[in-house]
Amino acid sequence: MTTVRVGQHPAVRGRTGRRPGNPDTRQAILDAAAGEFARSGYGGATMRGIAAAAGVDTALLHHYWGSKNALFMAAVQAPIDPADIARRLAQGEISDLGRRLLSTLLEQWESPAGPALLALVRSALGDASTARMLREFVVSQVVVKLLRTYRVPDDEAALRGALVVSQVLGVITARYVVGVEPLASLPPEAVVAAVAPTLQRYIDGDVTGAGG
Amino acid sequence: MTTVRVGQHPAVRGRTGRRPGNPDTRQAILDAAAGEFARSGYGGATMRGIAAAAGVDTALLHHYWGSKNALFMAAVQAPIDPADIARRLAQGEISDLGRRLLSTLLEQWESPAGPALLALVRSALGDASTARMLREFVVSQVVVKLLRTYRVPDDEAALRGALVVSQVLGVITARYVVGVEPLASLPPEAVVAAVAPTLQRYIDGDVTGAGG
Repeated sequence: MTTVRVGQHPAVRGRTGRRPGNPDTRQAILDAAAGEFARSGYGGATMRGIAAAAGVDTALLHHYWGSKNALFMAAVQAPIDPADIARRLAQGEISDLGRRLLSTLLEQWESPAGPALLALVRSALGDASTARMLREFVVSQVVVKLLRTYRVPDDEAALRGALVVSQVLGVITARYVVGVEPLASLPPEAVVAAVAPTLQRYIDGDVTGAGG
Repeated sequence: MTTVRVGQHPAVRGRTGRRPGNPDTRQAILDAAAGEFARSGYGGATMRGIAAAAGVDTALLHHYWGSKNALFMAAVQAPIDPADIARRLAQGEISDLGRRLLSTLLEQWESPAGPALLALVRSALGDASTARMLREFVVSQVVVKLLRTYRVPDDEAALRGALVVSQVLGVITARYVVGVEPLASLPPEAVVAAVAPTLQRYIDGDVTGAGG
């Protein structure tokens, strides 16, 4: 772990009002963050621990990224902001959430951010520590949080969220990583038509086999 | 590619009646097969081409493995025989196929063959040529063939098969590769209760969003 000493706190801005900070310091913090997230998972890593590992003050992390969430996204080089997407998804009825979730996701994958998303998923599939930090972030910070804004009971949200992730991950993997035809070349609307009802059942339908 | 000359056709058996053949020759054929399957996919690779690449007679391949299917399974070191599993799954009603498919699959993953299956999936996720040969084999030789034994129309079988693969791959990846909780530690029966209805809809339900 590289220890970096910061000569001047970048919060002390010069006259231009724009001072992005020492790029080496930022990178050292991002490296430390990636290491801590990989070691302790999203929930276990702390801003204080990351700052200590990078040899800087915790305030500097807040200054640069504002939140652990934003620091995480920067550390894993995520090309999209899932928290922002989750906020957009939280507008609308729960009865339609499966369709909106999948449409929005496919939009991201078909956008210029697609290749970077693919790289991120590939590294999570190939490396246990990346898998650990991403799964925890995506499941608890994005999907389960989203379900809770729709008042899905706490004791159901974790399983429902994991089931949603299983089908979403399956579509992403089959369509973009492994390239299973005809799924890989189907227009997004057709994928949504086929798969959204699955997500909707996982969100608010019966997932216990009890019927209903 | 190693070229191997075979001095004596192993079909000419000795008195013991058991002659597994020259292990070096077998291995050279398996290596050649893995190369050909990776290059040309399951459908594109031929017994003749593999024999030529290994520098042996095609009859030797049939002698050792009996079929391209069996040679493929040996070349990818598959710990289970999907063709055999597909045959067992073909016994029973289509209305129950989703449940039987998932139960059987989870049984295999929880069996001593599990770690080898995981290794195979990991290598398919990490390597495009392994992904190519496995996806083609699993989709067209196992899943779509199974759907056809239930007289699912040809023009629907490919999409239905790919959707089944998307959810199965998603469960496998979430449960065994990435370890998404609580899915990773749920008893198999609970996974089946939650996910089998998805597979059943992909098999014989509406997948066009037209309703029904």
